[in-house]
Amino acid sequence: MQSSIKTILDWYKEISLLEKVRALLDWDMNVNLPKNGSQGRGEQSSLIAQLVTERWLDKKFVAQLTNIDISALSAEEKAIVQSAKRLGKYYLRVPRELILKKASMTTNAFMIWAEAKKNNNFADFVSLLTSLVSIDKEIASYLSDGGDPYDALLDLYEPGLSGKTCKQVICSLQPTLSTFLEKIISSSVYKNKKPVTGVFTIEKQHELVHLMLKKMSYDLSSGCLHTSSHPFTTTLDRHDVRITTRYNEHDYREALTSTIHEAGHALYELGVDERYSYTPLEGGVSMAIHESQSRFWENQVGRNPAYLLHLLPFVKDILGYTIDHKSFVLQLNDVKRSFIRTEADELTYPLHIMLRFEIESELINEGASVRDLPQMWNEKMKKYLGVIPPNDREGVLQDVHWAYGAFGYFPSYALGNIYAAQFAFAMKKELNFDGLLQTGDTQPILDWLRVHIHRYGGRYLPEELIKKVTGSPLTSSHYLEYLKDKYSKIYETTL
Amino acid sequence: MQSSIKTILDWYKEISLLEKVRALLDWDMNVNLPKNGSQGRGEQSSLIAQLVTERWLDKKFVAQLTNIDISALSAEEKAIVQSAKRLGKYYLRVPRELILKKASMTTNAFMIWAEAKKNNNFADFVSLLTSLVSIDKEIASYLSDGGDPYDALLDLYEPGLSGKTCKQVICSLQPTLSTFLEKIISSSVYKNKKPVTGVFTIEKQHELVHLMLKKMSYDLSSGCLHTSSHPFTTTLDRHDVRITTRYNEHDYREALTSTIHEAGHALYELGVDERYSYTPLEGGVSMAIHESQSRFWENQVGRNPAYLLHLLPFVKDILGYTIDHKSFVLQLNDVKRSFIRTEADELTYPLHIMLRFEIESELINEGASVRDLPQMWNEKMKKYLGVIPPNDREGVLQDVHWAYGAFGYFPSYALGNIYAAQFAFAMKKELNFDGLLQTGDTQPILDWLRVHIHRYGGRYLPEELIKKVTGSPLTSSHYLEYLKDKYSKIYETTL
Repeated sequence: MQSSIKTILDWYKEISLLEKVRALLDWDMNVNLPKNGSQGRGEQSSLIAQLVTERWLDKKFVAQLTNIDISALSAEEKAIVQSAKRLGKYYLRVPRELILKKASMTTNAFMIWAEAKKNNNFADFVSLLTSLVSIDKEIASYLSDGGDPYDALLDLYEPGLSGKTCKQVICSLQPTLSTFLEKIISSSVYKNKKPVTGVFTIEKQHELVHLMLKKMSYDLSSGCLHTSSHPFTTTLDRHDVRITTRYNEHDYREALTSTIHEAGHALYELGVDERYSYTPLEGGVSMAIHESQSRFWENQVGRNPAYLLHLLPFVKDILGYTIDHKSFVLQLNDVKRSFIRTEADELTYPLHIMLRFEIESELINEGASVRDLPQMWNEKMKKYLGVIPPNDREGVLQDVHWAYGAFGYFPSYALGNIYAAQFAFAMKKELNFDGLLQTGDTQPILDWLRVHIHRYGGRYLPEELIKKVTGSPLTSSHYLEYLKDKYSKIYETTL
Repeated sequence: MQSSIKTILDWYKEISLLEKVRALLDWDMNVNLPKNGSQGRGEQSSLIAQLVTERWLDKKFVAQLTNIDISALSAEEKAIVQSAKRLGKYYLRVPRELILKKASMTTNAFMIWAEAKKNNNFADFVSLLTSLVSIDKEIASYLSDGGDPYDALLDLYEPGLSGKTCKQVICSLQPTLSTFLEKIISSSVYKNKKPVTGVFTIEKQHELVHLMLKKMSYDLSSGCLHTSSHPFTTTLDRHDVRITTRYNEHDYREALTSTIHEAGHALYELGVDERYSYTPLEGGVSMAIHESQSRFWENQVGRNPAYLLHLLPFVKDILGYTIDHKSFVLQLNDVKRSFIRTEADELTYPLHIMLRFEIESELINEGASVRDLPQMWNEKMKKYLGVIPPNDREGVLQDVHWAYGAFGYFPSYALGNIYAAQFAFAMKKELNFDGLLQTGDTQPILDWLRVHIHRYGGRYLPEELIKKVTGSPLTSSHYLEYLKDKYSKIYETTL
């Protein structure tokens, strides 16, 4: 390695360690923090965030990153430099004052949003949101290289993603998905399905989800499962990737599916080549690829009728819940016109994202007014999902993302499902997928993911990775085929 | 405030925040860390420690601290500057290379010590320990101002403490305590006391210790109780002071007394005047005063026969343990010739410390050889406690402190008991102490501690504080009186 690659890596290691410290501060905040500790925790997190920013802005480091002669590097070294530039892009190109201005603007954002949501009063959120749209437009101007400002924001969260791609792979699904939804809801199977009833103690659910973790080969020597109000995964170290879940005593599905989902994220992080530790390639390559792994496990595996046949006796034994396979499959593959994104099923999920994508695009590229958001929201809900939320709390105020000015973040959620379906399509050419699931043997599936995806970490950009793994660029056709096949069988209707 | 006091406080706040981040890394390591995460955690902690060191060594900060004109400051501002100088003394006076050399020397110290202890092989510990004695002597030479080198080390942990004071207040107790021990062990009450029998489930003990926390007014909105192999208290914020305990299913006393002890530490930290937050006065003033608070609650309150009368029905109800008051008192005030310091009772505890003090003093001041430690240890054990440990694992290798080169740390443990007795003596002039304990009403006791001790944090040095609170300098006479009175009654013998 050249000396400058070494300098870059040495410096980056400190950023990496500080990010892990910050991750612990966040994890603890969600899992343990006593009520009165939140203000102090905020100060601690801000300091570490500031130290990270200072390191990205360090003049020597920036000079190294900017001036290094890529042509003289190996392919892997090139990937390291490019990934560092990508991860640092925000710090390297946006003026420091603007970064600090946005940081200070969002200090109380959570509280303002939470209060507005609690009081169902969008007006209280308008001023903050308007400022954030304006500052994100300004930020985008430093990142866009003359393209659409919204594309520059999308690229921050998902490298290479553009509005054009979102339209092609997400929005194009809408007519078909809306039709699927209509047909399923009209089917007699749907009309006769049984709701979840009974009480499921946390102890029993705890046992069930730990069994799931064992089945998935999530190693408790390199992670742990705790409880938090919103389940999440966090990497505190290459060998310490923690997940959380939440329990609902009246619905066993919440803990079960969220645990599988988060363990899917964790397996990705735990599978990255150890040589990449403390380098810019150490984690999952992007939000969407990450979400493809969690959704793969949650939906393609965890809600697969063949796998549910394997799980059924365990659910009966551990939860003491007697249910037939068909009802079990229906409960885990319920489809509905929901108001809330995080509660949406895999079939309607892209519609929730499409709506957000279109609104963000209009805000950032076309000068739409923040004041009009509730109306825009409700019209699109009506058009795509056929329902209008009864209030803004369950509508435009439901997600926290915009309170942090994270415009461009949502599309990667939907891309996760689409990537997952394309990966599954490729995997099924090599593995007897349903056969393995029916016996509960997911080890070959995990091995396949490790070899083809996990070990690479940030080595290949999403568009390179999907081609390398599946031979084709990203397309939503596999996702549509998968939904059509699965849901037509489950609901015994022609989609 | 002068501008330089403000500069000092601004800079110190960053040190304070980083120390709290480091405390979280440690807390999590002891409470949650998955097995494979320990190497990464070590790197994270080292980085934060290094950032703290850099801040203490910052040239501008050092200049401010060194050059500030104290005469122009208020008494409180003076205390802030003096406390900062005291906290930073190690960094300000010891050459950087020496600090780093000791830091690198102790990186693997825990492992070397643990291995030597496990294998009961002191020889494997000699080389590390010899180097540490040598480097601590060198460090002491930069701190001692011409006095005894060991005094300089004592002062690092307990400001103002000298070997002379240790001899006066700790070693002078030995003949009396050894006699007390002899008499108690020969008493018929001692010979007829009943051992703890039965099984106490963790769930029930958990309920009991949470009841204790409530009785003590330890607020779970500003802290939490977890489990760790060695109980400890840690301050993550002025409003987030956490404690841990450990459960022994065959002995309810372990969780009960360690929880009370740690909650005693926590109440001190939670009682410091909020105005001192993020200043050098924010925590307890010293190790010994801290230990006085934990020991006060554990021994003066938690093992007090009057309080045990109040606790008895709760222990019966919650643990389902039927025991008479007299046996309960004996179980919680057991006295024995133990080998292990951490298991020692309040009567023999100073003997364990005296032994360590004398050895440390000989090592640092008088050039004793590390190779001779096992023999020195066993001779002193025989002399002071009347027993010789069967092996070095239960003898000279039992404590980790020396592996980190923490010579001078032990005496503050014993001083805790002595300070506690002197504080209690003063308190009893104002409060009907035993009367309050008999009714379980400890609130006036906590209020007294808050007003006289807690709120001051680091405002007064230990020697100032004891005079302010009790009107006299530190003396061990109250401690001896307390032991004599309590144990002669419990064991029905003349001490």
